[in-house]
Amino acid sequence: MTQPLVGVVMGSRSDWPTMKRAVEALEELGVAHEARVVSAHRTPDRLFRYAEEAAARGLRVIIAGAGGAAHLPGMLAAKTRVPVLGVPVRSQALSGMDSLLSIVQMPAGIPVGTLAIGEAGARNAGLLAAAILAGTDPELAARLDAMRARMAADVPEDPADD
Amino acid sequence: MTQPLVGVVMGSRSDWPTMKRAVEALEELGVAHEARVVSAHRTPDRLFRYAEEAAARGLRVIIAGAGGAAHLPGMLAAKTRVPVLGVPVRSQALSGMDSLLSIVQMPAGIPVGTLAIGEAGARNAGLLAAAILAGTDPELAARLDAMRARMAADVPEDPADD
Amino acid sequence: MTQPLVGVVMGSRSDWPTMKRAVEALEELGVAHEARVVSAHRTPDRLFRYAEEAAARGLRVIIAGAGGAAHLPGMLAAKTRVPVLGVPVRSQALSGMDSLLSIVQMPAGIPVGTLAIGEAGARNAGLLAAAILAGTDPELAARLDAMRARMAADVPEDPADD
Amino acid sequence: MTQPLVGVVMGSRSDWPTMKRAVEALEELGVAHEARVVSAHRTPDRLFRYAEEAAARGLRVIIAGAGGAAHLPGMLAAKTRVPVLGVPVRSQALSGMDSLLSIVQMPAGIPVGTLAIGEAGARNAGLLAAAILAGTDPELAARLDAMRARMAADVPEDPADD
Amino acid sequence: MTQPLVGVVMGSRSDWPTMKRAVEALEELGVAHEARVVSAHRTPDRLFRYAEEAAARGLRVIIAGAGGAAHLPGMLAAKTRVPVLGVPVRSQALSGMDSLLSIVQMPAGIPVGTLAIGEAGARNAGLLAAAILAGTDPELAARLDAMRARMAADVPEDPADD
Amino acid sequence: MTQPLVGVVMGSRSDWPTMKRAVEALEELGVAHEARVVSAHRTPDRLFRYAEEAAARGLRVIIAGAGGAAHLPGMLAAKTRVPVLGVPVRSQALSGMDSLLSIVQMPAGIPVGTLAIGEAGARNAGLLAAAILAGTDPELAARLDAMRARMAADVPEDPADD
Amino acid sequence: MTQPLVGVVMGSRSDWPTMKRAVEALEELGVAHEARVVSAHRTPDRLFRYAEEAAARGLRVIIAGAGGAAHLPGMLAAKTRVPVLGVPVRSQALSGMDSLLSIVQMPAGIPVGTLAIGEAGARNAGLLAAAILAGTDPELAARLDAMRARMAADVPEDPADD
Amino acid sequence: MTQPLVGVVMGSRSDWPTMKRAVEALEELGVAHEARVVSAHRTPDRLFRYAEEAAARGLRVIIAGAGGAAHLPGMLAAKTRVPVLGVPVRSQALSGMDSLLSIVQMPAGIPVGTLAIGEAGARNAGLLAAAILAGTDPELAARLDAMRARMAADVPEDPADD
Repeated sequence: MTQPLVGVVMGSRSDWPTMKRAVEALEELGVAHEARVVSAHRTPDRLFRYAEEAAARGLRVIIAGAGGAAHLPGMLAAKTRVPVLGVPVRSQALSGMDSLLSIVQMPAGIPVGTLAIGEAGARNAGLLAAAILAGTDPELAARLDAMRARMAADVPEDPADD
Repeated sequence: MTQPLVGVVMGSRSDWPTMKRAVEALEELGVAHEARVVSAHRTPDRLFRYAEEAAARGLRVIIAGAGGAAHLPGMLAAKTRVPVLGVPVRSQALSGMDSLLSIVQMPAGIPVGTLAIGEAGARNAGLLAAAILAGTDPELAARLDAMRARMAADVPEDPADD
Repeated sequence: MTQPLVGVVMGSRSDWPTMKRAVEALEELGVAHEARVVSAHRTPDRLFRYAEEAAARGLRVIIAGAGGAAHLPGMLAAKTRVPVLGVPVRSQALSGMDSLLSIVQMPAGIPVGTLAIGEAGARNAGLLAAAILAGTDPELAARLDAMRARMAADVPEDPADD
Repeated sequence: MTQPLVGVVMGSRSDWPTMKRAVEALEELGVAHEARVVSAHRTPDRLFRYAEEAAARGLRVIIAGAGGAAHLPGMLAAKTRVPVLGVPVRSQALSGMDSLLSIVQMPAGIPVGTLAIGEAGARNAGLLAAAILAGTDPELAARLDAMRARMAADVPEDPADD
Repeated sequence: MTQPLVGVVMGSRSDWPTMKRAVEALEELGVAHEARVVSAHRTPDRLFRYAEEAAARGLRVIIAGAGGAAHLPGMLAAKTRVPVLGVPVRSQALSGMDSLLSIVQMPAGIPVGTLAIGEAGARNAGLLAAAILAGTDPELAARLDAMRARMAADVPEDPADD
Repeated sequence: MTQPLVGVVMGSRSDWPTMKRAVEALEELGVAHEARVVSAHRTPDRLFRYAEEAAARGLRVIIAGAGGAAHLPGMLAAKTRVPVLGVPVRSQALSGMDSLLSIVQMPAGIPVGTLAIGEAGARNAGLLAAAILAGTDPELAARLDAMRARMAADVPEDPADD
Repeated sequence: MTQPLVGVVMGSRSDWPTMKRAVEALEELGVAHEARVVSAHRTPDRLFRYAEEAAARGLRVIIAGAGGAAHLPGMLAAKTRVPVLGVPVRSQALSGMDSLLSIVQMPAGIPVGTLAIGEAGARNAGLLAAAILAGTDPELAARLDAMRARMAADVPEDPADD
Repeated sequence: MTQPLVGVVMGSRSDWPTMKRAVEALEELGVAHEARVVSAHRTPDRLFRYAEEAAARGLRVIIAGAGGAAHLPGMLAAKTRVPVLGVPVRSQALSGMDSLLSIVQMPAGIPVGTLAIGEAGARNAGLLAAAILAGTDPELAARLDAMRARMAADVPEDPADD
């Protein structure tokens, strides 16, 4: 199996329906990746271990999704220099506004690049990870350009068209 | 020096003007305590060590204050069974609403008892820690009752009175 | 019947589906408890009586859940030194944001340790009450440690695993 | 001294700069009133006594101002049939949004007629109390009409006029 | 037919399911009332006429419900000295937060006593109107006291009781 | 004096520092206009008269600014077919969020074209009114194009440039 | 086919159920129009072309609807002097609050006249576009007056009427 | 001069006090960069040109800061595959909540990695850009590790220490 370049982690298996959109984007673009459940609150040691080994294992980007008081992305970022992209998973009561603020409002020193709430954000995290890797991988850049061109071509002119 | 029963920790020295209100309440009630800076994001290992040693060191309550994407209270709670009380420190842009949601919206399994945003919340964290300890310390309970009685007596009837 | 150590109260019978999560947590951990409906607005005298008798009856923690303009936790705290944990029940129009702010934003002097909105918060109130009692009850502490260990062990590595 | 018809109460002496706007409106309209500090959280028994005696003492309206987790108006309303008007006092961190929701979002059964956040709301509470009394007091109705007419006449046509 | 003392008006027939809760409360308490659709935006002249005639027609309280940019309560209050109680009807996109702010945040000079968002607020508007009238109607006061006593008696002790 | 094509109205003279930005934009573009204080709540009849006469007086656009429970723009729109542009004036407690929602959330049937909160919105209301008139006034269109070109040319490349 | 005077554009075909309400209003009033999908993010060049050609093609108003980080209305306005009306389409997680702020909070210099979130806003955008055109088209003005009169006549007096 | 790898752009020169924090971080880490004012609304063509040339000019990351209806980061991302990091600049009325939602809530397909509101976010954008480049630049990785180690070492234990 190929060495994963992108690690997709999430705080709970219930985040999978959201976070698999990140995995799909990576698959469409042929980016080697892995997916793991790492709960900041229930398995904090697993979180630390994952982050501590990330650089040495060759991970170039970590995508982390969590909901509510979402501490996973920020705590990973605290423990590794590998860039962390955060996906606020939609929460029950507050629709993900709590997830968003818990992830994006990091203090100076430890950044998390945050995407939109929910599935769009998860897909975009996959695309942004690919774009980061594409900076030094011309073939991936070409695949990304092709995907963007298809996406543009798929926008119809007529809204009522079936 | 007395063994501290309450640990007051905060994410940054800039949280001290807020968090010293917790310390003052503990001092007024004669509760042994300590105060430490423990940054979840800049010193994650110190955070883990603090939480791992808390129970064995005899801490009965941890008060944790942080602002913005405030992960300190929740991550301490993830690493120790000692009850954690969270104080949302007022943040610059969002006035502590981000701090509040980052602290209070913990997932099922790992609780943080959250107080009000800012100085009132910090003082109340100290009082709540004392109330917890007073459950098995009748003398502290008496001191707490006396403080509450004084507080009531200090409310004037006439709002315009000087 | 065992003397209850934790009183679980709620503003309305409609809060029961939420608040029974607190009761379940206490039951799983073998903590003696009671559950009561005490409406701050419809039965204010019952509220006062409950709070006035709490300490003498041996209650060590009160868990109070309410929604909307949720005054129950704060008014209980105003009338007893027994620590009060507040659970913001999800409200219809504002999804519990009104409940949360009504409970957490207590003024200096009278604390309420507030948990997350809804069922997660109710379960966590039960767990936090147990953690408070575990400070002087080594057997409960051991049961709590075991529950936390099980919870960690139950987190799968693979998100897509069935 | 005239028997007060309107009781203006507030949770803390720090609410006086806001709440005196209610008193001023009542004075301008010649409505007999009184002003008291009654803290829901620090002096809950005073709150109950005030509400229990309100009807018998001849109070026709109670105006209650409080900030943050503002429980005073709702708890007064829980204890008396006398109409309660609530004034959300502007709070430090959340600018009175917490005060507003704590006051206005009362459950079915116990109403509080809520005014705007801050000084405008306090003045309007005084005016609404007067309008309520004017329903059976033609002279007060005439004074209120005159005040409204003056207010209209004082609106300039030209915004840049000095 | 009895002369109505309370006018219940609403901005649209779609507000009726909410506003009929106000009518029900008035009926239970035997308060003479009327119900009308008066749209501030579609029938502004009807609004003005309704307000201009209110005092002379003997209305003692107006209850006005509206949603979204809810201008009906405030514009009625601008045109009559009769006390206006506002009910924020729950709106589709913003769940009534827009309705609430549009109604409650009136400028100094023209008050609207605002109730909770939705059905609870509508019922409470009816109860508050009755409480206002009860100030000079001892029989209504007695009926209101009886209703409040029944409401208290109906609160069960045991939340799990069927 | 030229017949005004744009009427700039505001709810209070205190809105003038904001609303004069609309007037300045109209002056820079040579659009005939007038400015008036028209309070929806204190002078509702003036509001109705202004709206009723607007079309006949030749007004082609009305710009209306107000704060808090801002009813002026929507009520003008209810009374005239002349297009109404609304400017949410920044309010004290809620920073204009109440003004914005009170203006923009109009029900189907009566539109208000709403601009940004505060001075930027006021200037933009002036510019949008000019753009509307420019649709049938080529000279104004040219002046508007020139202003937009100057605005683009004034954007420096170097942010640190003095 | 008639030269369109109003261009209705939207960021995605999924916005059509909302935006067709604008088209319906234009059709009812006999205003020549066109409808196009123009995605700011997927087809930015189409957006620029559309805006650049708008004035020359005779468009007098552009109605643009988009959701989430809604950049379409503002970017069209940046590229054409033709007045742009923005419709915040309701978004999944944040119910259109993100759409609203992304559209309405334009900086000084480039206005977008913003309507309510969702279908009411879309219909109102059509009506406002018609009102703008009616300023120089007496027949359209008469049709608009007739529609407004019918709308007023359709408001029932009795809310419970079927 | 070295070929810039990171482009720091901002919507207005008034964003410079915020955005220079990104530049400072890049300078401390020795990352070649440039800083430009590119207004999405006033200079849309400059925006397009900047984005179109970015990849060919060798830019590996673009950092874009803007406030209010902040369209710059998203529109750059729409026009280039180069990863875009967005910084929500604090706005006057809404404290940057509008900026944040306008930047982060991008639809699926076009990602913007968003940082915290204001100066912390700007600094973090610089650090995240460096971390992205460090993935293929071991020397930069070492400098970043050293900076992170210094940052940890600078956290004092004692909050009251001077």
